[in-house]
Amino acid sequence: MTRVLFAARPDRWEEYRGVLPTALAEAGVTAEIVQLSDRPDPASIDWIVYAPNSDLQNFAPYTKLKGVLNLWAGVEDVEGNRSLIAPLCRMVDNGLTRGMVEWVTGHVLRHHLGIDAHLVRPMIGWDTKSPPLAADRPIAMLGMGELGTACASALVGLGFPVTGWSRSPKTVAGVRSVTGRDGLKDVLSGAEIVVLLTPHTRSTENLMNAETLAWMRPGAVLLNPGRGALVDDGALLQALDGPLGHATLDTFRIEPLPDDHPFRIHPRVTVTPHIASTTRPATAARVVAENIRRGEAGMPLLHVVDRSEALQ
Amino acid sequence: MTRVLFAARPDRWEEYRGVLPTALAEAGVTAEIVQLSDRPDPASIDWIVYAPNSDLQNFAPYTKLKGVLNLWAGVEDVEGNRSLIAPLCRMVDNGLTRGMVEWVTGHVLRHHLGIDAHLVRPMIGWDTKSPPLAADRPIAMLGMGELGTACASALVGLGFPVTGWSRSPKTVAGVRSVTGRDGLKDVLSGAEIVVLLTPHTRSTENLMNAETLAWMRPGAVLLNPGRGALVDDGALLQALDGPLGHATLDTFRIEPLPDDHPFRIHPRVTVTPHIASTTRPATAARVVAENIRRGEAGMPLLHVVDRSEALQ
Repeated sequence: MTRVLFAARPDRWEEYRGVLPTALAEAGVTAEIVQLSDRPDPASIDWIVYAPNSDLQNFAPYTKLKGVLNLWAGVEDVEGNRSLIAPLCRMVDNGLTRGMVEWVTGHVLRHHLGIDAHLVRPMIGWDTKSPPLAADRPIAMLGMGELGTACASALVGLGFPVTGWSRSPKTVAGVRSVTGRDGLKDVLSGAEIVVLLTPHTRSTENLMNAETLAWMRPGAVLLNPGRGALVDDGALLQALDGPLGHATLDTFRIEPLPDDHPFRIHPRVTVTPHIASTTRPATAARVVAENIRRGEAGMPLLHVVDRSEALQ
Repeated sequence: MTRVLFAARPDRWEEYRGVLPTALAEAGVTAEIVQLSDRPDPASIDWIVYAPNSDLQNFAPYTKLKGVLNLWAGVEDVEGNRSLIAPLCRMVDNGLTRGMVEWVTGHVLRHHLGIDAHLVRPMIGWDTKSPPLAADRPIAMLGMGELGTACASALVGLGFPVTGWSRSPKTVAGVRSVTGRDGLKDVLSGAEIVVLLTPHTRSTENLMNAETLAWMRPGAVLLNPGRGALVDDGALLQALDGPLGHATLDTFRIEPLPDDHPFRIHPRVTVTPHIASTTRPATAARVVAENIRRGEAGMPLLHVVDRSEALQ
């Protein structure tokens, strides 16, 4: 019998109380699941299923911990936690990747087709000017990890020319790869729609700032389903009062985004409430259960986070 | 020297005056291009590049005509014209297909993701309920010709379950095929988004009427980038005042759609001005030139319309 602590906000438990025991049973794991409110002895816990906004922030008392299984793709709020010495696994959920592909593809096409014009102010008259084809709408994908690569491939499939910017060169069918500072200037100045999907690290904090935003084309669109901290908010607002066409933002430095935040009312900003890619409990529970099964069987865990930069 | 009559509205000529001579030259065809306003002798014309809303409606005087090359995909306004005995070729333009795929995919994702909610009334608060994944959003494609098949395949590529309804069964990877009246009821009652891409024939006139609209699920969405006459407008308005979720319409019985038409102001209707799939002059000119080259070389023409039903 292995002991699993579910450490997330209480409303999250409502989503997992049905699917997590099922997934563990299907994986052949005999487990007891407890919650923080049960006040379990930390020294009795084998595994922690974890949301970084949980009340659990000090892992030191969990002396026999075998691993922390993050429910989120993002680990920046936990990877630098020095009280955690057990392996940290990120959520890599196919449903999460598919959700991101759908959000990115949908908002790229929304801007590409100019759909807003037919919604926000219903058309009078009959302006039959059609948009260019996707083949003539260059896209920049900043970040070519699991999510960026999946989104870039979906956009290539629809005919868009896509350039991917990443730390090291990537070989992805149909995607031009660039790297480094020169590559960033190249990709930003050549694209009409820019998608931010880099992880948030020290080197990508404020990746989009006054200087890099100025490299974007007049009228270009920025999509940020990645991380709020990738963008200097003040510089973005200034750019939107100038040549930048639009920003559609799903992630923010402070979430929930305050109701009186300037992004809420700026005519060139669309806010979505961090829904681009959300963990779906049914698929996420299976990912968690599989890792516990592997750990209990002495097999290497999947999706272990490299924390070397975060712990520097 | 072959003689080509460009028979379309004058503003159309502005789009083709550059690209059509180039395309003919590139195809190795030596041609003289004339317009209706040049008042050419009809008996001197070899080919007519044609838009069905042109002033030319009587083909009888064109006694040595080798073919009519339609600039539009739709031929319903010309295929029944008994004065035309030369072959009629429809426009099958890759740019036209790509444009349709982009419009259909973009509007499917717009409805799938619920994008309107973030645009029409900017969000206050932070409702993080995310949409289902595409895998849980069944789509109906009514019509599996060139355009319907391309759109169905793009949607399958994004993970949507797609059922295609067509006159005869079709084998398209990932698409379930149904036919006939029972198939229509099956596909309409099973889908959350229905796309109309059948040709307009006698048997598809008012395909969506009070009875068939009632087969659709409550809250379902109808997209009509096909032909206005596929829909009984009055029945659609009634359904939208009832359980139907939304209609996004690109084609209408009367175009331009009158400014005072009920579709313009209905809160559950989005109007786009017949832009889903428009012929792009540069690519269309190459399709036309290739057919003239083939005809002049004694080769069979491409994309010849079967007019047997229209001429019954």
